[in-house]
Amino acid sequence: SADGGGGGGGQGPAMDFPYLSPAHRDLMLDLLSDTESRLGPHLLPSSVPPDVLSFQSDSGNCKGSLDIRHGADGSKVDLILQSWLHCELPFGVLDITTLFAYLRPESDAPHLLVEFIQNGPDSLVLFIDLLPRRDLVLHADYLDHFYQQSSLEKTRQGLESAAEVAPYRSSSLYIRSVLSPTAIAVGINCGAEGARPLEELMRELVAGAAKEVIGVWLDRCALAEREVTEGDRTGLVARDDLIKRKTVEIDLSANLPRLFGQQVASRVVGAIQKAFGI
Amino acid sequence: SADGGGGGGGQGPAMDFPYLSPAHRDLMLDLLSDTESRLGPHLLPSSVPPDVLSFQSDSGNCKGSLDIRHGADGSKVDLILQSWLHCELPFGVLDITTLFAYLRPESDAPHLLVEFIQNGPDSLVLFIDLLPRRDLVLHADYLDHFYQQSSLEKTRQGLESAAEVAPYRSSSLYIRSVLSPTAIAVGINCGAEGARPLEELMRELVAGAAKEVIGVWLDRCALAEREVTEGDRTGLVARDDLIKRKTVEIDLSANLPRLFGQQVASRVVGAIQKAFGI
Repeated sequence: SADGGGGGGGQGPAMDFPYLSPAHRDLMLDLLSDTESRLGPHLLPSSVPPDVLSFQSDSGNCKGSLDIRHGADGSKVDLILQSWLHCELPFGVLDITTLFAYLRPESDAPHLLVEFIQNGPDSLVLFIDLLPRRDLVLHADYLDHFYQQSSLEKTRQGLESAAEVAPYRSSSLYIRSVLSPTAIAVGINCGAEGARPLEELMRELVAGAAKEVIGVWLDRCALAEREVTEGDRTGLVARDDLIKRKTVEIDLSANLPRLFGQQVASRVVGAIQKAFGI
Repeated sequence: SADGGGGGGGQGPAMDFPYLSPAHRDLMLDLLSDTESRLGPHLLPSSVPPDVLSFQSDSGNCKGSLDIRHGADGSKVDLILQSWLHCELPFGVLDITTLFAYLRPESDAPHLLVEFIQNGPDSLVLFIDLLPRRDLVLHADYLDHFYQQSSLEKTRQGLESAAEVAPYRSSSLYIRSVLSPTAIAVGINCGAEGARPLEELMRELVAGAAKEVIGVWLDRCALAEREVTEGDRTGLVARDDLIKRKTVEIDLSANLPRLFGQQVASRVVGAIQKAFGI
């Protein structure tokens, strides 16, 4: 059942990441476990139907799983979305794993975005960020509190200092705009001579960076108090809705039909839109 | 006189860039000439005193020039700031040339930022951008009109495709936040084996990119009509004031005293603050 898949702390069959490499799979399980052990009491059971918790294309070359859990009453967490896609395509195998966590307008603290896009055994594109919920040019105190005073910039620098890691610029100007100034947006290439294997890099470098960012998000965002006035709340809701709409539009509406066919894509996107309230 | 220096289309003695290399100097003169020939009728004479139009440190190792011209009544241009600094320091020679152009709240079109920071014969850090005046996450139409539909991204990509050019990340999180998603923020390093001379790169690559961006700014921003409501205007003024304050704080208040001494720095910063109305 949907509850069995999403309610078991992300350890149910659907979120077992059956197609990932061992290091990548361990990392995802770790991240979900860290998140859910800290937020668990604040989360409701899965809110998606079984045919969204597990889906595949007609030909079976693409498989996926998507789970969404809402925050319980009184929680600052609006919802947590976790998903994996595994597609065996003519040019190679594509694995995308995603963890989004959105907060409610009772807090203005950043949302969490973690996305791994692997399209070969030696290369990976990685986004890990706390998405700002205010215009950072207008809100210097916000920039200072979440980005300057935290360890995010140090973590980003540490990751980018590895020879196999290079900054990655999304082709979407919107995604560039929505990311924070300390966003981890990198390409990892382990195909060059002298490079360490990707598995090693995942365990020794990526895992640590991802856990650090999620730690900052849990401590400073999801589980911290923020004062938000009634007027602020309206602005936050409008901005959050746009972020959610654009996430669905750029990330999913554009890619899922191509990979899974229109029918499956509509079902999955529909479940997300319903959960997002957009 | 101040008028003689700033009023002559930027070609007066102060903005003659006496210390720049020929290609760098030609480029700056070209940019100012392009800008002033298009905006000339909209600009008032220089508004800074002679001891800001030309200044130096007590020991004479640092020299500089700063000019500010306001827009005439009815112009969309608030002000244009142009400056150069030339410092002979223990570790080498530092040359910084800057062109900022701010628009009034009658338009919400982006401001123009051009800054060249050269700290050796072979290397240059370069910022060329149209600074967004709205939160791009909230204003998708703004992102689309100025950044997606213009040639800015193509220009950026063209410049970054050169082997001598690499993305440059400012250490200031604020500056990262204020830049647009198509900002040119690059380091040029011509010291490596096989690299072209910096002079050649300036003429053949940088000059073209800088002129393209300024062309977009003139056509699409400074000389184009935008509808701005009364309510929008208040928000724009608040955001613009912050941009101006931070520009002075990060760029000048932090560096000028170290290079020119407190007295000269105060005079120059004071003239800017007065012109900026902050």
